[in-house]
Amino acid sequence: MARILLTGFEPFGSALVNPSQQLVQHLAHDGIAGAEIITAILPVAARHVPQQIQQLLIEHQPDWCIMLGLAEGRAQISFERIAINLADFRITDNAGDQLIDAPIVSNGPAAYFSTLPMRAMQEACIAVGTPAELSLSAGAYLCNLIFYTARHACETLGLATRAGFIHVPATPELAAQSARAIPSMSLNTMVVGLQAALGVLVNELATA
Amino acid sequence: MARILLTGFEPFGSALVNPSQQLVQHLAHDGIAGAEIITAILPVAARHVPQQIQQLLIEHQPDWCIMLGLAEGRAQISFERIAINLADFRITDNAGDQLIDAPIVSNGPAAYFSTLPMRAMQEACIAVGTPAELSLSAGAYLCNLIFYTARHACETLGLATRAGFIHVPATPELAAQSARAIPSMSLNTMVVGLQAALGVLVNELATA
Amino acid sequence: MARILLTGFEPFGSALVNPSQQLVQHLAHDGIAGAEIITAILPVAARHVPQQIQQLLIEHQPDWCIMLGLAEGRAQISFERIAINLADFRITDNAGDQLIDAPIVSNGPAAYFSTLPMRAMQEACIAVGTPAELSLSAGAYLCNLIFYTARHACETLGLATRAGFIHVPATPELAAQSARAIPSMSLNTMVVGLQAALGVLVNELATA
Amino acid sequence: MARILLTGFEPFGSALVNPSQQLVQHLAHDGIAGAEIITAILPVAARHVPQQIQQLLIEHQPDWCIMLGLAEGRAQISFERIAINLADFRITDNAGDQLIDAPIVSNGPAAYFSTLPMRAMQEACIAVGTPAELSLSAGAYLCNLIFYTARHACETLGLATRAGFIHVPATPELAAQSARAIPSMSLNTMVVGLQAALGVLVNELATA
Repeated sequence: MARILLTGFEPFGSALVNPSQQLVQHLAHDGIAGAEIITAILPVAARHVPQQIQQLLIEHQPDWCIMLGLAEGRAQISFERIAINLADFRITDNAGDQLIDAPIVSNGPAAYFSTLPMRAMQEACIAVGTPAELSLSAGAYLCNLIFYTARHACETLGLATRAGFIHVPATPELAAQSARAIPSMSLNTMVVGLQAALGVLVNELATA
Repeated sequence: MARILLTGFEPFGSALVNPSQQLVQHLAHDGIAGAEIITAILPVAARHVPQQIQQLLIEHQPDWCIMLGLAEGRAQISFERIAINLADFRITDNAGDQLIDAPIVSNGPAAYFSTLPMRAMQEACIAVGTPAELSLSAGAYLCNLIFYTARHACETLGLATRAGFIHVPATPELAAQSARAIPSMSLNTMVVGLQAALGVLVNELATA
Repeated sequence: MARILLTGFEPFGSALVNPSQQLVQHLAHDGIAGAEIITAILPVAARHVPQQIQQLLIEHQPDWCIMLGLAEGRAQISFERIAINLADFRITDNAGDQLIDAPIVSNGPAAYFSTLPMRAMQEACIAVGTPAELSLSAGAYLCNLIFYTARHACETLGLATRAGFIHVPATPELAAQSARAIPSMSLNTMVVGLQAALGVLVNELATA
Repeated sequence: MARILLTGFEPFGSALVNPSQQLVQHLAHDGIAGAEIITAILPVAARHVPQQIQQLLIEHQPDWCIMLGLAEGRAQISFERIAINLADFRITDNAGDQLIDAPIVSNGPAAYFSTLPMRAMQEACIAVGTPAELSLSAGAYLCNLIFYTARHACETLGLATRAGFIHVPATPELAAQSARAIPSMSLNTMVVGLQAALGVLVNELATA
């Protein structure tokens, strides 16, 4: 039984919902065959996220840690390849903090690669008709921050957990209300794609 | 009972399906309360489309003529405001024709505005969570050609039919197979939005 | 000697300069061989522009009327193919007016095509290394308004003047100050391209 | 006297020129006050570039190493913040190699940050009217490869050289010939911006 820690974020900015939170709820509700899913919804707050993700990893010691976040403006599911040691926020987070040109971990390495089988996950996603891409930048906001923090925790604490980050587009509901014309993807299309991608993890563990 | 002629296109290029055809089938299958829906799937062929749409209009004399077509690369449902008397194809159509800088109707007027209540339809679409925009150009390919031809037929034949064109994004299935990273929208999201938009037509007729 | 009326716009919004105004000045200063250039800088004001462009056309009766305007966000010189009878402003103009879904000329035709040799002008522009495209929409703001008004004046007053509109990108200076990442083109690149495009007009008249 | 190693690339793909090569020539020809400029034009070949950049760094031991490359499709000068240990080519390089999901240096660190004062350079660029941005990804082609290799050499060889990579847009001449509509920037606009950015380096060294 693969143990998967699945995280999303609270809403931020003016949005009332965050698709990453909705996806966590849908995926946990539907379940993934062969997997036990542990979920957490994290605050969009740089001062709280690092400790919380570290605690979750220590407490649950999952096989996989899959973190989800919203990337407004992107048209596809984005499997992020790398987390960088940089926080540079264009807007304040929900706690009112705005980090500029700051390291996430002082003297930490410049970056960590994802330890998920990203390309296999992307291909599984596409195979079920959900547009997906590999991405070389998770930005420098909270999404990259949690991704870097989780990977740093795994490395420094010697956890066997393999961890990675997946960006998702806005939902049609968010895009319909947006002042800008942005691409969207329905929750159902995302759920189908992510179920296929998580299935890759279950199979990889089963055949290891 | 509002009579609505609803048209889509056959697949073109390398695609095996055309979302406009799928939408016509879904909308006709589900039905619109207070409306009788007549459907037609048209060839992507400049030499055949004008005669076919004209015959459909004469035969059925519908209250509304709603033409659907694919706009690969767009992220929202696009309610087209105007059809122009220009055919300028970047690629050949399915009959092998490639019109360049050609009028659709010799000595026809430069353009016709849509006679649909475009803004009310767009707002109805957004209200149900389907991203939608008003568009100032339907291009110069088959979509604009059928739109211009239909409006020209209504004007020159003295038909009471009100007619307009709606562009739709690629489906996730098409986008997932695309070599380019293009936005997409699920059929379900489109159907919900178009049902709301067609509902505007039924109400307008009922209250007229 | 070809007589060319060349117009640009005053700055609008928060910008201190308008590239269309700068281009008119540069092109007039450098001159075009075989052409007499008459210039005018027009206000970004729907209540004033129609009368002013009409007066200019009547007073000068030029062979050609070339109207320039800024299209922030475009990456190429855009030769506009068509002007439509619609004013639909996203923002107020410099006189504080915001027309919504309004005709420019009540009972005027839906649109007028440009009467410039657009494709030859575009190709001349590209041949000297200035990126250029043919465009199917000049928008529904002041640029389209002056374009429609000028073409309407030519048709209704029986003027021999051939008229068209050319959109230009932001300059690097404007883009460098922009909150959004927008494409730009240097004045020099634009001047070289437009000189080549205006040269087409001189030649066409000379060989007519 | 600041010693600056300035590199560009040979043309690749179907292009006959590479703006990065043209910029190196222009900047070296004009000179930078207070700086000695050493130039090199490198092949677009993964099998040759690492050794060549390493030799250049060892031989010249410059104060600064500024590497330039073309990013077709970008609209601004991009100051790259980070180089990652990944080669993943969409197309073959000029030597016919196509690396996929490969590390640049086996067991090398995941990434190196630029050691240039990126934000000060970007701001200097903008101040003279050249659009510029900080970028979080230099891609996974030759540009990232040389950037990673140079930073790795500096770290592992204990060089005092500070190194970074700058992506530049296509020139108008390249964009005019492109099948896609891509943004461009004139060499002159780039030169002015890069001179200002390099001036930051000279000043930083002078005041250190």
